[in-house]
Amino acid sequence: MKRACIVSVGNELLNSQTVDTNANWLCKQLLTFGIPTEGIWIAGDEIERIVSSLKQAAEIGDIIFITGGLGPTEDDITRQALADFLGVQLEFRQELLDKIEAFFKARKLAMPEINRTQAYIPKGGDAIENPVGTAPGIHAAAKGKDYFCLPGVPVEMKRMFDDTIRGRLESQRSGPIVLTGRISCYGAGESVIAQMLGDRMKRGRNPLINCTVSGGDITLHIVAQADNFEQAQQMIAEQKRELGEILGLLVYSTEDKSLAEVVGQLLRQKKITLATAESCTGGLLGKYITDIPGSSDYYLGGWVTYSNEAKIRELGVAEKLLQEYGAVSEPVARAMADGAVRKSGAGAALAITGIAGPGGGSEQKPVGLVYIAVKNGKNMEVRELRFAPFSREMIRQRAALSALNLLRLELGV
Amino acid sequence: MKRACIVSVGNELLNSQTVDTNANWLCKQLLTFGIPTEGIWIAGDEIERIVSSLKQAAEIGDIIFITGGLGPTEDDITRQALADFLGVQLEFRQELLDKIEAFFKARKLAMPEINRTQAYIPKGGDAIENPVGTAPGIHAAAKGKDYFCLPGVPVEMKRMFDDTIRGRLESQRSGPIVLTGRISCYGAGESVIAQMLGDRMKRGRNPLINCTVSGGDITLHIVAQADNFEQAQQMIAEQKRELGEILGLLVYSTEDKSLAEVVGQLLRQKKITLATAESCTGGLLGKYITDIPGSSDYYLGGWVTYSNEAKIRELGVAEKLLQEYGAVSEPVARAMADGAVRKSGAGAALAITGIAGPGGGSEQKPVGLVYIAVKNGKNMEVRELRFAPFSREMIRQRAALSALNLLRLELGV
Repeated sequence: MKRACIVSVGNELLNSQTVDTNANWLCKQLLTFGIPTEGIWIAGDEIERIVSSLKQAAEIGDIIFITGGLGPTEDDITRQALADFLGVQLEFRQELLDKIEAFFKARKLAMPEINRTQAYIPKGGDAIENPVGTAPGIHAAAKGKDYFCLPGVPVEMKRMFDDTIRGRLESQRSGPIVLTGRISCYGAGESVIAQMLGDRMKRGRNPLINCTVSGGDITLHIVAQADNFEQAQQMIAEQKRELGEILGLLVYSTEDKSLAEVVGQLLRQKKITLATAESCTGGLLGKYITDIPGSSDYYLGGWVTYSNEAKIRELGVAEKLLQEYGAVSEPVARAMADGAVRKSGAGAALAITGIAGPGGGSEQKPVGLVYIAVKNGKNMEVRELRFAPFSREMIRQRAALSALNLLRLELGV
Repeated sequence: MKRACIVSVGNELLNSQTVDTNANWLCKQLLTFGIPTEGIWIAGDEIERIVSSLKQAAEIGDIIFITGGLGPTEDDITRQALADFLGVQLEFRQELLDKIEAFFKARKLAMPEINRTQAYIPKGGDAIENPVGTAPGIHAAAKGKDYFCLPGVPVEMKRMFDDTIRGRLESQRSGPIVLTGRISCYGAGESVIAQMLGDRMKRGRNPLINCTVSGGDITLHIVAQADNFEQAQQMIAEQKRELGEILGLLVYSTEDKSLAEVVGQLLRQKKITLATAESCTGGLLGKYITDIPGSSDYYLGGWVTYSNEAKIRELGVAEKLLQEYGAVSEPVARAMADGAVRKSGAGAALAITGIAGPGGGSEQKPVGLVYIAVKNGKNMEVRELRFAPFSREMIRQRAALSALNLLRLELGV
């Protein structure tokens, strides 16, 4: 079985400016190939430190990943450090310079002279294409070990791993297989779900079930170990089926889809168009819906009626309702959803009004109070939600996700 | 000057279940004592790996922190690993067992037998009190170096650092103070900024300048070393002033404010209200603006006109324009901003229309093409932007941030 080590490079990782999330992401990807990570080294932007980390990593690992330090500036010295470690020179590659120049040209920019350094590669190594930035990655092999250098910018690192390295690892795969699967839930807390699952969340179990939480969204991670791919796949599928039965309507996806994606699928299937009317979420609900490519097929658009005037003018909310019940109230949420359907001609509408804080709360209407209305044809459902008043961001996130979840349930899963 | 190294222990840090945030937190605390962290090692729950990490760390550092692996279960072996590394035996301490038993007693629980292991300390070492858990920490000194073991649970680790270790470091303080400051920029790439700064980004300089990038947002980190606090503060201020002069309008904050916050401040100062008209960003711009508490003082609201019909109906965009130029065009961006001002009565408006992809692009109008219009009173500015077509998320993020930045410049910094 091959083993991996990771060297993360950058002063920003040692002076607390940045938390190293790249190594964690890489560990996860490598596990799916049955490759455990044996150690992680974080080194600053100094050749000596990078070289000594590489030496230590190479004592343990068969595959060494190095992230960071491939940029064009002076503190980007990973290229030189790898060359020193391998005992070779850096070599200029015209074809790399051509690509970097083309990258700038496509953006109608002149290439700054310093980007030239990115066209150098340790002799004997090969470049890994970077489709989303100027820094090419590097692959080198020495004494039976593979070295992969990737940029530190997460979006570039991930894209290059997916495009190039995944395929190489796939073709070399050996040893026990570790597969992971996910079940996405919404509508209950972590401890409620843990209680429903009981012993199934025990450590050391195979498949193992872990739980992570993000803004009310609960993900159950299933990690299955087996001798071959099919067996691991079957374990994941069986576990998904069992958990799905236990958790029922709390489960919105067993295929890594987001709530917005699941709702979009339902709208598309049922040929229903959607409009949104947002107050406290300020556009976040529309953002979630339009995160999904092709959402224009069912999403007509929406209103961010942040002021009372906008609610009246744009959605026809009666001034009387606002005076009598206040902007954060069930009748106003209802009127916003009504207005959104009426004005847009959409088949369904979601409306949100609430108090995201930190200011603006009162004893009767505390920070975290949110009303959500879903209108679908003639049906109207309104929910009062009370979130913990600890974070404006969390309240807004949960309000928008809860609206999507209400629509999911309304559309009949 | 003393230097630190950190060894983080735990299988969960290597199998992607947990991101190591402890080391980052420690780096930050240590910097305030003028102690830089020279390296971080992440090791799994294996004695051999922990010992070899300790050896490597002790070669570089004067103060070595070890977090994790102090729990009562079988995989908690940091105590034994430290003893092995120091070449001493573990020693049972009755007073520690008394404290652990008292911890359980106070919670009306019987102490599980396995917690007994937590009463052992490497011979010659001393225990660090844990007021929030059962695992005592460990301090040991050998060959002029200090070793501190702390639990991996962040709340316990931080509390013990604050209660015990902070005081010890304070009393030993010698050498320089390290302070950090930040400058936030928008509107140019990393390499352009690096070229403008030239030698100022040289490694080893004091103050040191590092650069991180996130979605087009560029942050320059200034790290200043000085003999005392006031001097370090002054260096940061002076460096901010100098970089501000060089970078000019690219700088939007020297005080860690977000673009939306800076724009909000300008709108508030100038008593200008704002409306938004979004197409491809689908609400993200409104979300950014309303991330800021109190944004209702200047933000009236907006439209997510995702369909052509919505652009016509809600913003009065002429059908002819859409037919002649297409929804993603300068005239339509202009008409959206005009419509948003006209309908909302706001003093200013931002409009965005573009192709976020992955579908919907053509040769003439590729994915990544975005038009942004800002209207302020009678002034109208429209920009054509071309982002790399690789990620829907990145295109939308940059489009929304670029719109905020255009408004910032329009409002006259």
